[in-house]
Amino acid sequence: MGKYYKDLESCHQRIEQYIHRTPVMSSTLLNEMAGCHLYFKCENFQKGGAYKMRGALNAILQLTDEQKAKGVTTHSSGNFAQAVTLAARSLNIPAYIVMPSSAPSVKVAAVKGYGGNVIICGPTLKDREAMSDKIISETGATFLHPSNDLNVIIGQGTAAYELLQDHPDLDAIITPVGGGGLIAGTCIAADGKQDVYGGEPYAVDDAYRSLKSGKIESNETTDTIADGLKTQLGDINFPIIRECVKEIIRVTEEEIVDAMKLVWERMKIIIEPSSAVTFAACLSSKETFKNKKVGIIISGGNVDLSQLPF
Amino acid sequence: MGKYYKDLESCHQRIEQYIHRTPVMSSTLLNEMAGCHLYFKCENFQKGGAYKMRGALNAILQLTDEQKAKGVTTHSSGNFAQAVTLAARSLNIPAYIVMPSSAPSVKVAAVKGYGGNVIICGPTLKDREAMSDKIISETGATFLHPSNDLNVIIGQGTAAYELLQDHPDLDAIITPVGGGGLIAGTCIAADGKQDVYGGEPYAVDDAYRSLKSGKIESNETTDTIADGLKTQLGDINFPIIRECVKEIIRVTEEEIVDAMKLVWERMKIIIEPSSAVTFAACLSSKETFKNKKVGIIISGGNVDLSQLPF
Repeated sequence: MGKYYKDLESCHQRIEQYIHRTPVMSSTLLNEMAGCHLYFKCENFQKGGAYKMRGALNAILQLTDEQKAKGVTTHSSGNFAQAVTLAARSLNIPAYIVMPSSAPSVKVAAVKGYGGNVIICGPTLKDREAMSDKIISETGATFLHPSNDLNVIIGQGTAAYELLQDHPDLDAIITPVGGGGLIAGTCIAADGKQDVYGGEPYAVDDAYRSLKSGKIESNETTDTIADGLKTQLGDINFPIIRECVKEIIRVTEEEIVDAMKLVWERMKIIIEPSSAVTFAACLSSKETFKNKKVGIIISGGNVDLSQLPF
Repeated sequence: MGKYYKDLESCHQRIEQYIHRTPVMSSTLLNEMAGCHLYFKCENFQKGGAYKMRGALNAILQLTDEQKAKGVTTHSSGNFAQAVTLAARSLNIPAYIVMPSSAPSVKVAAVKGYGGNVIICGPTLKDREAMSDKIISETGATFLHPSNDLNVIIGQGTAAYELLQDHPDLDAIITPVGGGGLIAGTCIAADGKQDVYGGEPYAVDDAYRSLKSGKIESNETTDTIADGLKTQLGDINFPIIRECVKEIIRVTEEEIVDAMKLVWERMKIIIEPSSAVTFAACLSSKETFKNKKVGIIISGGNVDLSQLPF
């Protein structure tokens, strides 16, 4: 058993009362298309519309009472902002969410709707970090990183942990790779028994290149529809990924859109582009998965319906 | 116990091995918006993407072996065409599907993809009936009506039957009203214990007017986004509807689109416009359902993603 597996078990006990036990869905037709047996863990049905609340909860629940009273903060324009807000609300503690002025108004509204204190800053990462530092010094709030924090990583691993409770005989699991938290957590859950694969857009293939070079690489562009996967790996998740991930499979933008459309049309569930990279990876690497039982983490379903690619 | 309730129980036993037991989903946020507790029976996840296979199976399974060998036929450009094809394929008998030349090519392709023999005819109802008659005389196939056939009606009632097995304490059930098969079957399943409501677009409010006048009324326009609800009631389902349905709630096109968007955005499931009339009816008649436990039959999820209203 890997060194974090017991932590994963405790984490699941710690957070399960606050989250949905999401269903695992299958489609005969998609199985036929992919040539393998697919088990979709539907975190698009999770609270906040994504898996991210798992990690946020695990981190917050381990704060001291004094820390909890001062609240938590993060900077994000995506699903982690909503996740921290929801987790903090569940535990009745303050959440300070720093969002760039460039963030879509629907996302700002969503965080406010969940009761978060939104603080708007300038558009750059530097602006966000400066504003976070200001909030931390003023309020004493604890900063939560969306992917490079061991408690967050272990929390995200509970999605695969539940999938494997339901289907212990899987041969492989595929997750999207953005900041690396989800795939690192999935490695802990697989615990050497399943092959873990990552799906990543060619346009932001930092994880693919990082595994090749052995050090954390950056993206030069962010030109992908998979808006959740533009971030880069961190020094806490990268060693886990490097040790355990079998392969990062890259997919084109067209493959992502086609895979997303197929899942919408055939499974009747809404998944976001970042989640579609996994099924796209399956379709583009049929030999790798041929006749195998493959778990897929559907990471989220937060899509702007007025901006669809089809 | 109503006179068809025992038939409904036998029907469920007869068909359950061929269909999916679809899940019942809920959303805290939609409950808050509607001011009641909603239980969505997700027939969008049913085989063929709609509840229609239930009725088709129940009718086909009661044919004699000789009838089965000669096959079945229907005329439809919608979900019933796919349902009959799928049901016939499950039972390994021929299906002859008459579709008007005006049917969308995606729907023709779907029926062909499921193995149905598609026969294209002219665009009018008369053309379809003439072609059906020709096929019946040539092949000896049995004609299946999508909504005005007692076996089909009872089959459609199994969706509400399963919903009530899972949630026996519901106060009310809402279904969309098109040809009347689903709501009549739901009346049989509710068996006087739940109030049954129908949701119907103002643009095709034949059921609303039929209940007022006491005789089957026709629609003068078909100008609604709810493409499954343009048909009119029949002489077999109308007496059941007239006796048991508490109220038909009419909704505007705007209310349908808003309700559909809310379900997509918040529940992350794809429902077709015809299914959204039920939740729209809930939102437009809040006093009727206040604090009640309300079942909603999500009838289907077959949507052309290139023709979305948002």
